[in-house]
Amino acid sequence: MKKLINDPRAVVDESVEGFGLAYGDLVTVHTDPLFITRADAPVKGKVGLVSGGGSGHEPLHAGYVGKGMLDAAVPGAVFTSPTPDQIIPATLAVDGGAGVVHIVKNYTGDVLNFETAAEMAQAEGVEVRTVLVNDDVAVEDSLYTAGRRGVGGTVLVEKIAGAAADRGDNLDAVAAIGSRVNANVRSMGMALAACTVPHAGVPSFELAEDEIEIGIGIHGEPGRHRIPMENADGITDRLLEAILTDLSLNQGEKVLLFVNGMGGTPLSELYIVYRRAAKVLAEKGFTVERSLVGNYITAIEMQGCSITVLRLDDEMIQLWDAPVHTPALRWGI
Amino acid sequence: MKKLINDPRAVVDESVEGFGLAYGDLVTVHTDPLFITRADAPVKGKVGLVSGGGSGHEPLHAGYVGKGMLDAAVPGAVFTSPTPDQIIPATLAVDGGAGVVHIVKNYTGDVLNFETAAEMAQAEGVEVRTVLVNDDVAVEDSLYTAGRRGVGGTVLVEKIAGAAADRGDNLDAVAAIGSRVNANVRSMGMALAACTVPHAGVPSFELAEDEIEIGIGIHGEPGRHRIPMENADGITDRLLEAILTDLSLNQGEKVLLFVNGMGGTPLSELYIVYRRAAKVLAEKGFTVERSLVGNYITAIEMQGCSITVLRLDDEMIQLWDAPVHTPALRWGI
Repeated sequence: MKKLINDPRAVVDESVEGFGLAYGDLVTVHTDPLFITRADAPVKGKVGLVSGGGSGHEPLHAGYVGKGMLDAAVPGAVFTSPTPDQIIPATLAVDGGAGVVHIVKNYTGDVLNFETAAEMAQAEGVEVRTVLVNDDVAVEDSLYTAGRRGVGGTVLVEKIAGAAADRGDNLDAVAAIGSRVNANVRSMGMALAACTVPHAGVPSFELAEDEIEIGIGIHGEPGRHRIPMENADGITDRLLEAILTDLSLNQGEKVLLFVNGMGGTPLSELYIVYRRAAKVLAEKGFTVERSLVGNYITAIEMQGCSITVLRLDDEMIQLWDAPVHTPALRWGI
Repeated sequence: MKKLINDPRAVVDESVEGFGLAYGDLVTVHTDPLFITRADAPVKGKVGLVSGGGSGHEPLHAGYVGKGMLDAAVPGAVFTSPTPDQIIPATLAVDGGAGVVHIVKNYTGDVLNFETAAEMAQAEGVEVRTVLVNDDVAVEDSLYTAGRRGVGGTVLVEKIAGAAADRGDNLDAVAAIGSRVNANVRSMGMALAACTVPHAGVPSFELAEDEIEIGIGIHGEPGRHRIPMENADGITDRLLEAILTDLSLNQGEKVLLFVNGMGGTPLSELYIVYRRAAKVLAEKGFTVERSLVGNYITAIEMQGCSITVLRLDDEMIQLWDAPVHTPALRWGI
């Protein structure tokens, strides 16, 4: 295993420390327990947004802490849920008196730990609502999940719900728009090659030289099937077909098309995937109204990509376009 | 070779096409010959900025086309200079009457082709100045270079010279600030693992399981030496020491610290490198005034990083902070 790390056990702490040094104007890193808040948290009167999950998906979630998106992020160990001991103080730290929304990817550990933390925070007088993200159409149930996994749609939920909180929506309204995004977003991913969890030291799985995995999860957990290597257009068609079958778009509907890199895939290849996906969507009579292309929810250095399609309505477009200032997403500020 | 591509010979065309579809509001892709301009080019009365070079370094250069940075980018084949046939029309297309600055990374092919294009454009009545970028301290001369190679500093030259043009500086002033950035910036890179050029189909070089290359170029060309694998702090110290030896900073000077990923390295690892570099700079009495961390000048999917340090003055800080709106760098707009 060759990685730019010092100690496999210190990867998360040292990485978050470096992140905090690079973005000290935007975020505050709290240690023991570890969580990250906006530098100006809590924002009085605003609904607070907290997300989190296992590390290894950077820039998710800490990269989305800042004005117009998350108020706090709670990183667990690599591919391991954060604990209630971290989530509770993060929740309390960002409560500006209007309550807090937890945005939780649907993995068993995350769901349980956020649930426990929500109960404890409510016992301390903070109203909490939870938005569960489960946008991955690849599999029902999986290695770490009952039901569908939460993947790329999470970034869109965090941006749009974050904008709703920023404009002053109340607790139930912010949770409702987050859930509306989740209800209208679908994703599917694939891998050319596996990633290596630092403390494991060996790749999470093996693919043969001419084999790829369709429907892979963001922890390298199994997807739908392994198939012989295909070209980018063929792969894109497979992912998109599964998404569109599930999303049931109507002619003329507007979508956000998000092509995401898994960490080890060059941007040039993501554009080749985007090219095909945009063409297919146009041919089918859907309007790609907004786009996002890059490494936004990764699996360490896994090679591969995911495609996410969000059915947009006018309010979502307005909230997507609203100013955001985080380490990983920034516009209008 | 497993890549998200269709045809190794079509990688650049299809990737740029996808890029154009994703950012149609910002850029216009011109084909035959291939170059990319701002959608609103030429900007009347503004000095135009053109850069370019071999593809495979995405988001460089096309990702920096937009307000406050480049007016045009000219992509060659992967790791191959663009031709004068591309550079000339790009130059003419962005001349708003105030002349055009070419920002050229110091590789023999790029230098020759931009020189030829500059002469031809001048023959057509467009004043051209050239800023040569040669910030890589690793080696004097190399596989593709007489003198030092142009690497990470290029991104900073493009941002700062672009801001100078945007505020209305004249042709000589924009070229002068670009050259001033180049004179004050130093970089060095390293690789954990090689990249594969699509039409070659095999890795550009081989590193043993416990071996890394210090001083690697952005095409995988040889650096200073191969050494046994080290931890991130040790690697960071080596890169930074070479940079600081060459840059001769004085106590109390302000710097921009740029930690760049080579394409296949996760962001989490770049933060671990940033952490060490920021600490060492602080210990030595220098002030990290601005930062940039991420994949900004890559070598396809090479695993590794580079460090760039720019000695800042107040004008450079002001120009760095100025609004920019490109696919890959955006703030203030």
